Amino acid sequence: MSRATVAAMTAYTLELREAATKLNQNESPFDVPLAFKQQLVERILARSWNRYPDFESTALREAIAKSFGLAAENILVGNGSNELLAASIATFVGPGTPVVIPRPTFTLYEKLVTIAGGSIIHADIDPRTGVLPEVDADEHTVVILCSPNNPTGGVLTPGAIERLLAAGATVLFDRAYGDFASAAPPATRLDDRLVTFSTFSKAWGLAGLRVGWLSTTAATAREIRKVKLPYSLNIVSEAAAVLALENRALRDTNVARILAERERVIAAMRDIPRVEIFPTQANFIAFRPERNSKSIFEQLCARGILIRDISSYFGLANCLRVSIGTDEENSRFIEALKEIA
Amino acid sequence: MSRATVAAMTAYTLELREAATKLNQNESPFDVPLAFKQQLVERILARSWNRYPDFESTALREAIAKSFGLAAENILVGNGSNELLAASIATFVGPGTPVVIPRPTFTLYEKLVTIAGGSIIHADIDPRTGVLPEVDADEHTVVILCSPNNPTGGVLTPGAIERLLAAGATVLFDRAYGDFASAAPPATRLDDRLVTFSTFSKAWGLAGLRVGWLSTTAATAREIRKVKLPYSLNIVSEAAAVLALENRALRDTNVARILAERERVIAAMRDIPRVEIFPTQANFIAFRPERNSKSIFEQLCARGILIRDISSYFGLANCLRVSIGTDEENSRFIEALKEIA
Repeated sequence: MSRATVAAMTAYTLELREAATKLNQNESPFDVPLAFKQQLVERILARSWNRYPDFESTALREAIAKSFGLAAENILVGNGSNELLAASIATFVGPGTPVVIPRPTFTLYEKLVTIAGGSIIHADIDPRTGVLPEVDADEHTVVILCSPNNPTGGVLTPGAIERLLAAGATVLFDRAYGDFASAAPPATRLDDRLVTFSTFSKAWGLAGLRVGWLSTTAATAREIRKVKLPYSLNIVSEAAAVLALENRALRDTNVARILAERERVIAAMRDIPRVEIFPTQANFIAFRPERNSKSIFEQLCARGILIRDISSYFGLANCLRVSIGTDEENSRFIEALKEIA
Repeated sequence: MSRATVAAMTAYTLELREAATKLNQNESPFDVPLAFKQQLVERILARSWNRYPDFESTALREAIAKSFGLAAENILVGNGSNELLAASIATFVGPGTPVVIPRPTFTLYEKLVTIAGGSIIHADIDPRTGVLPEVDADEHTVVILCSPNNPTGGVLTPGAIERLLAAGATVLFDRAYGDFASAAPPATRLDDRLVTFSTFSKAWGLAGLRVGWLSTTAATAREIRKVKLPYSLNIVSEAAAVLALENRALRDTNVARILAERERVIAAMRDIPRVEIFPTQANFIAFRPERNSKSIFEQLCARGILIRDISSYFGLANCLRVSIGTDEENSRFIEALKEIA
C-alpha cells in the first residue's frame, strides 16, 4: 500500500475490559479438560524447541484430511483462519477486483480487501431475516461469505454458494461458526473457485492456540500456498490441533451443550419485553433493545457481564451481541437483562 | 494480486530431508533446558485455552520493552519475524514503490515486495567481502537489509543505515542474526523510517515457538499495526518468549558457545584445500568448494549431514552454507568435508 492508504485506515481494535462473565468474543465457555492439556504437554516436552516446526505442517494437514475425507493437498493450516483469509484474499484480489462483501459482517474482510486494493461492493443483509440478498456476480467477482454470519447469526439460503459458483464467481466462505448451524455448507465441497475456512477457536474451544484451516482443490491450495508465509503454526499449536482431532468428542460435547443453552437463552430473551432478537444459528445472539444499547451495555458491565456492542455496524444501530456461555453465565446475563432492558 | 501474478510466482519451498546432523536452517543446536520447558508448562496449564490470547500481547511487548530500554508502544510482536516483515512491507510498499534489496539475501523479501507490487532494485553484494554497495536512495525508496546477511554471513559497513536514513530512505532492517555479530546495529535505534526485526528463533533457541518482534517509533508501530493481523501469538508462544526474557543467560550461553564453535569451524575449514569460505558474523558459514557443490552436498547427506545448497542464489554459483551446530556435529561436518572436498 501507499503510506497514505495506510494512514487513512483505522486500526482494528477491541476494547479491553476485564469481566467475571465474558460473553463478548464468541469463545467456547468450556476449557479443554486438564487430561487433554497434560497429554499435549507430554508430546511437546518430547520435541526439540530449538528446531523449526515442520515446514508444511504435514501431520496436521493429514489429520484434518483424514477427519473430513479429503487429501492433505486440499488443506492449508494457519495461525487462526484470519491468516488464511489474508493469504486467500491476497491471492484472488488485486487492484480493482470487484469483491462482494455482505454487511454487516466480520470487519476483517473489508480491511484485507482494502489492503489488496479490491473494489468493495456491499450486499446488505437484513438482520431480522438473516438472508443474504441476491448478489450480481460474474467470473471476475470475488464473494466473501460468513455463514452463520458474524455478528448477526443468520445463515445463507440453501444453494447460495452453488448459485455464485455457477455464475462464475470465486467464493471465500468463512465457516467459523458452521459447527453450530443445523445445515451449514460443509467444509468438504471442493471447487477451484471455492475456499472454505474453518477454525479450532470456536466449537473446538481452542481459541488460545490460534489454529485455522482451509479446504479447497489441490490446484487452488497450491496458489494460496505461494502467498502464505511458511511456518504458520508452532510446534505446540500444531500438536494441539492434531490431538483435538483425535478427541472429536470434545467438539461434539461443546456443540451439544452450547446449542442446548442457545435455545434456552433465546426462549428466555423472547420473554423479555422491549428486546428484539435476531435469528441465529451461531454460538451468539444479536439483539436490539428498545432502550439505549450503550446504557444497557454499561449496566451489564457494571454487573461484571461483558457482551459486545455492535451498534456501529451497518444496519445494527442500537444492537448488542451476546455469546453463549456456561449455564450459570447465561442465567446471570438473562437475569440482568430482564432488570435492565 | 491478480491471479496471473500469483500463477507466475514460484512457491517458497524447502527440501525436506531427515538427517542425524541437521545444519541447514541456522537453528541453535541447543534445546532449551527441561526446567525451562516445565516452567512454561506450569504457566500454560494455568491458562484457559478456550479464551483468545491477549489482543495486544501486552505482557510480551512490555517484557521486550523493559529488556531493551524501550516502551511497549515501540514494539510489535508476531508469529516469527516473517509475519512482521510481511506487515511492514505491506505498510510501506505499494504498486511501483522502489525497493532496494541486496542480493543474494533471504528470498522472502523479494516475494513479499512482489506481492505488494513494489519495483525491485537489486544491490549486489560480493560474498567475498560481504560489503553492501553504495545504494542510491531517496525519500521514495524502501531499503531492506539483513545484517549479518543470510545466506552469506557478512555485515553492513558501519554507518550504512544512518547514511540511508540521512538520504531520506525507509529502512527495514532484519536483525535475525544480529546477536552473533560483534557490532551489529542495535534493535534500540528509533526512527520513524527505521523498523528493526528481531527473533527468538536463532540466538534464543526457540525456533519451534515462532516468535519475532519489531522495534520502531510509536508512530510507525501504529501504522504497521493497522496492517498486521491481530492475535499473532498464541498463549504458549507469548508465554515462552516472556519466560525467555526472564532467563537471558539462555541466549548469552547459546551465543557464547556458538561463537566459540564458529571460530573453530572457520579455522578448520581454512585448512581444507579447495574450499573458499566467506567472512561471516552469523551462526553459519557460506563457502565455495572448487569441486561440484551438489556432489559435495549429496555426499554429506549420505553421511547423515544436512547442510544448505545455496548455489541457486545470485552470485553464489557452486556455494553451500553450513549452520554452526554442537561441537560434535561441527567436528563430524569438518571431518566429512575434509574427505569429500
